[in-house]
Amino acid sequence: MNRDQIMKAVKQELPNKRWVHTLGVMKTAVSLAKTYGADPVKADLAALMHDYVKYWPMDKMRQVILEQGLPQELLDCDWELWHAPVGAYAAKQEFGIEDEEILDAIRYHTSGRENMTTLDKVVCLADYIEPGRDFPGVNDIRKLAKRSLDKALAEGFDTTLLYLISKHKPIFPLTLLARNSLIKFSSKM
Amino acid sequence: MNRDQIMKAVKQELPNKRWVHTLGVMKTAVSLAKTYGADPVKADLAALMHDYVKYWPMDKMRQVILEQGLPQELLDCDWELWHAPVGAYAAKQEFGIEDEEILDAIRYHTSGRENMTTLDKVVCLADYIEPGRDFPGVNDIRKLAKRSLDKALAEGFDTTLLYLISKHKPIFPLTLLARNSLIKFSSKM
Repeated sequence: MNRDQIMKAVKQELPNKRWVHTLGVMKTAVSLAKTYGADPVKADLAALMHDYVKYWPMDKMRQVILEQGLPQELLDCDWELWHAPVGAYAAKQEFGIEDEEILDAIRYHTSGRENMTTLDKVVCLADYIEPGRDFPGVNDIRKLAKRSLDKALAEGFDTTLLYLISKHKPIFPLTLLARNSLIKFSSKM
Repeated sequence: MNRDQIMKAVKQELPNKRWVHTLGVMKTAVSLAKTYGADPVKADLAALMHDYVKYWPMDKMRQVILEQGLPQELLDCDWELWHAPVGAYAAKQEFGIEDEEILDAIRYHTSGRENMTTLDKVVCLADYIEPGRDFPGVNDIRKLAKRSLDKALAEGFDTTLLYLISKHKPIFPLTLLARNSLIKFSSKM
């Protein structure tokens, strides 16, 4: 599928509010990619598809996780995390995306991972700070994003960790590894 | 070595304040062990030795980690974590402790681990709440400890996570796994 066809397919799958969010993530991701040296075309495509399966029924996502060999520990975590790896699977199957950098940026856009690529970081951070986002601390992360991709993203993950701790919810280990590796890298700069 | 000999050796190695803390952990661990069904004799011994190497020079601890095959990722984390696995090594080498349950309770008393034994939990929680401890939230954890070992310990770990996040310090992955597994277990009760 070409970009226009994917645009149409994604738009059809999402409620309007989520589509507007997707457009915000695309714009922000392209801007961050240009600033921090990722491929803006890949950033645009990964951002376009990042929430494609967000409104799939839980059972459909669970089935993909079980049958396609995705990490089974996902099933122990908040199902909010599932749409990212399931989305990477769908982008390959339904849109024919073969570029592993794009698929990884979709796959890890919520959890993060250890040693994220610049494209991973750009899409993940754009998802935190696109113009429609409004949560306590988002403006601090937006400010940080102007001077350090790593510090801004570490702050984004910390916001997530604080939220999960306050709700006594499990924290996905990859998110911790992502945060730790960003902190290590930042402190060396 | 018998208990009296170990008492003398540990006391000699610690500043008085830390020795008083150790006595507090021993008393609390024995009490928790009786409440929650761990072996009080083992709890007493593990608590006695838990901080034995706390004041060893950093280089000496690093050498043990490097040479004795302890998890190398410890070296990337706060060195406050090192004395627990190094302490288990020393308890075996210097005091001749062979009981793996006791050694594990020493080894994991700071980081925790996934699926902790009751003895692990008792020593770890006692270290958080012994009478000399005074940090924000400690009384809430003491109250929780009267009705749920798992919930109290999860709260203790969350206090640690919040502290590390506020200081932008790396979080040891085992601590997260320990917390997640306590939360999962608690929510099933």
